[in-house]
Amino acid sequence: MKYLVRMNVSLPRDLAEDDRQELVAREKQYSQQLQREGKWPQIWRVVGQYANYSIFEVGTHDELHQILQGLPLFPFMDIEVTPLAAHPSDIKS
Amino acid sequence: MKYLVRMNVSLPRDLAEDDRQELVAREKQYSQQLQREGKWPQIWRVVGQYANYSIFEVGTHDELHQILQGLPLFPFMDIEVTPLAAHPSDIKS
Amino acid sequence: MKYLVRMNVSLPRDLAEDDRQELVAREKQYSQQLQREGKWPQIWRVVGQYANYSIFEVGTHDELHQILQGLPLFPFMDIEVTPLAAHPSDIKS
Amino acid sequence: MKYLVRMNVSLPRDLAEDDRQELVAREKQYSQQLQREGKWPQIWRVVGQYANYSIFEVGTHDELHQILQGLPLFPFMDIEVTPLAAHPSDIKS
Amino acid sequence: MKYLVRMNVSLPRDLAEDDRQELVAREKQYSQQLQREGKWPQIWRVVGQYANYSIFEVGTHDELHQILQGLPLFPFMDIEVTPLAAHPSDIKS
Amino acid sequence: MKYLVRMNVSLPRDLAEDDRQELVAREKQYSQQLQREGKWPQIWRVVGQYANYSIFEVGTHDELHQILQGLPLFPFMDIEVTPLAAHPSDIKS
Amino acid sequence: MKYLVRMNVSLPRDLAEDDRQELVAREKQYSQQLQREGKWPQIWRVVGQYANYSIFEVGTHDELHQILQGLPLFPFMDIEVTPLAAHPSDIKS
Amino acid sequence: MKYLVRMNVSLPRDLAEDDRQELVAREKQYSQQLQREGKWPQIWRVVGQYANYSIFEVGTHDELHQILQGLPLFPFMDIEVTPLAAHPSDIKS
Amino acid sequence: MKYLVRMNVSLPRDLAEDDRQELVAREKQYSQQLQREGKWPQIWRVVGQYANYSIFEVGTHDELHQILQGLPLFPFMDIEVTPLAAHPSDIKS
Amino acid sequence: MKYLVRMNVSLPRDLAEDDRQELVAREKQYSQQLQREGKWPQIWRVVGQYANYSIFEVGTHDELHQILQGLPLFPFMDIEVTPLAAHPSDIKS
Repeated sequence: MKYLVRMNVSLPRDLAEDDRQELVAREKQYSQQLQREGKWPQIWRVVGQYANYSIFEVGTHDELHQILQGLPLFPFMDIEVTPLAAHPSDIKS
Repeated sequence: MKYLVRMNVSLPRDLAEDDRQELVAREKQYSQQLQREGKWPQIWRVVGQYANYSIFEVGTHDELHQILQGLPLFPFMDIEVTPLAAHPSDIKS
Repeated sequence: MKYLVRMNVSLPRDLAEDDRQELVAREKQYSQQLQREGKWPQIWRVVGQYANYSIFEVGTHDELHQILQGLPLFPFMDIEVTPLAAHPSDIKS
Repeated sequence: MKYLVRMNVSLPRDLAEDDRQELVAREKQYSQQLQREGKWPQIWRVVGQYANYSIFEVGTHDELHQILQGLPLFPFMDIEVTPLAAHPSDIKS
Repeated sequence: MKYLVRMNVSLPRDLAEDDRQELVAREKQYSQQLQREGKWPQIWRVVGQYANYSIFEVGTHDELHQILQGLPLFPFMDIEVTPLAAHPSDIKS
Repeated sequence: MKYLVRMNVSLPRDLAEDDRQELVAREKQYSQQLQREGKWPQIWRVVGQYANYSIFEVGTHDELHQILQGLPLFPFMDIEVTPLAAHPSDIKS
Repeated sequence: MKYLVRMNVSLPRDLAEDDRQELVAREKQYSQQLQREGKWPQIWRVVGQYANYSIFEVGTHDELHQILQGLPLFPFMDIEVTPLAAHPSDIKS
Repeated sequence: MKYLVRMNVSLPRDLAEDDRQELVAREKQYSQQLQREGKWPQIWRVVGQYANYSIFEVGTHDELHQILQGLPLFPFMDIEVTPLAAHPSDIKS
Repeated sequence: MKYLVRMNVSLPRDLAEDDRQELVAREKQYSQQLQREGKWPQIWRVVGQYANYSIFEVGTHDELHQILQGLPLFPFMDIEVTPLAAHPSDIKS
Repeated sequence: MKYLVRMNVSLPRDLAEDDRQELVAREKQYSQQLQREGKWPQIWRVVGQYANYSIFEVGTHDELHQILQGLPLFPFMDIEVTPLAAHPSDIKS
């Protein structure tokens, strides 16, 4: 099942530069592992914003919540989830 | 270049059933032609709504506007366009 | 999987009284059939509004969309869907 | 009487980890005690958010306010309450 | 139990003048009967708008919904309901 | 003249407990004095929120502003004021 | 007492041109009579919109509501009222 | 003086095709005359919408309002006006 | 040319009392100087809020921006500007 | 391709005056370099706000995002991007 997810990131200004870099590196690693597993097939940057739109493909709501809650940047994110169904005009379905 | 596009459809209630079916059929044909050309690579239904989220991949803003304005359902749609950039964590980029 | 669904109904004023009654009767029958199947386990009226909050329990997003799109009142509804996960404090999970 | 309650939690970043754990543990205990008493019959996690939707079943508005105000996480919550009535299509009523 | 209720009225322009007057007269009668019974103790006009704020005092959510749904102007109203509890500073409680 | 006033309170987290208690005690005293004078005839708690809806009855806008600005919690409040007129259906007018 | 009032006008498209002109002429006459009486001391057009911001100076909320409700364009207006108090920096007060 | 103006157009569905074409042709002529006079130096289509963002350069608010009110499509437009000042980083100022 | 300006003030809680008083005193002086020059002809307090609505009368957008940017409280204000034109019903124009 | 970009700036109050000046100076230099290259052809101040509306003209979404993300004030900005297409009434196209 697919979900459109929008993540807006807001890092606190007093985060030490080292901590920031380490956090962002862990986030990248975490995201890429899920991309390789096919659970996070697409991710795009929203132009002009520290935000992304992503497609997730997982088996259950619980699985998606576990993934999102585990994001290293989760405490600094504002996340919106939209469930997606097949579209009758989609040539791939 | 990629764009996330959300289309909300609101058909007028006094549209004759034949006109409605003909309109929806033309919309489907128009969409599928663009999907085959690779300009409208993805389309999903928003669960519970007469709406879709789509990814468009075209060369210019003008080209996207021409495509959207040409949609048979365009007069009955409310459309939002978000430009998308490559994300630094994307394993495909 | 569970979803919280809010449906706001707005019937057109020029709907003939017979049509309105027939529509509402079909809606009730449709809803109760799904309640009996366990797919629509809960439904409440929002106080003071022609609206309801419901819990749906189905296997996939596609199944939920088919159910909602099939509602006799669907053309007159504004629907919002929120996917729900298990809560760590829930004594039943 | 039933109420749909949405709670959004926003813990301050400078909360010590021990305090946070103790607070969350007390919240869980408080919630589960009310679940066992039948006053908080349902609780679900909103996917992707530190938030829940819950059903409360209590005798009066005052009783509900006392319960919510007593939540260990109350000072860090943003709460919305919607009163629910019986729905005429509900097969259980 | 008390509820703050806001009602916004929007009468359709093509309502015949006789129908409008008859409707408004029935609404007044209905409201005043409930005021006399003590269930609708207060009603104020919002300055500059065809709207009112009211206090209702009834035993249950279901009772309030039955009252509001029975308003002759209900099909032309947009209603918001806020449950009210006793305030610790209230000298009357 | 009557006004519906909504006050949302948001106390800063680093307020010392003694200061908080002293502030809330002064607020209560201030409110009750105005209730006794008949200028603040009604106050209700919004269920689930650190907020109240109140009715004020004063002679002028200036008088109301002086009263509200003098609230001990004023610096921590977000206040909305709605002027109320007599309603033609009110049995008391 | 002073009030800032914003009026947005939305005339129905099927209003006959004669009716429209007669309505607008009556509105102008009504407004100018109140301006001469000093109750509607200021009126400005919002640039680019069929809307105005006005200052009203009347004795009570009820008087203002009677004035606004009596506007020939009242059924086609959306009105917002903000009560104004004296400002401590005002050199005229 | 410069203003950023956004115009959203919403043509009624029952407008005869001839009337629509004549209206749009007059709008174009009106706009181009003002562009040639230097009062409407820039106009862009908002991608995916029947809307434009424009820059106007005129001497007074009154002049801008006369221009906008005179647009053939004015009755079918929703217009927002933002006054613009020189920016200290602008290399042209 | 006239502008309606709304200023919402939000002073930081950790501002020293002396600094606050000095700031407010300078704001008052600055405002009254402009009132005497006829550029800030009207200022009213929004009832219940640390906010004002003002009328400004200046020659250009740039002049208004310089005035507003120079307000001692500018860093703590949220400001909205609405350009005003003459109204055809205004007896003074 | 053109984009309308709105940037709202919100500098933290505890930024040292030297740091603030250095940051603003770098922002100006960065902006003016892009203006000279023709990529940022227009910039205006929003009257009364620490905000600007700008036109950008670049080859791709990615290029625009790199430019915006590189703004010295980027961490303190809230940015909205609207893609613009040619307008059929534009005399320059």
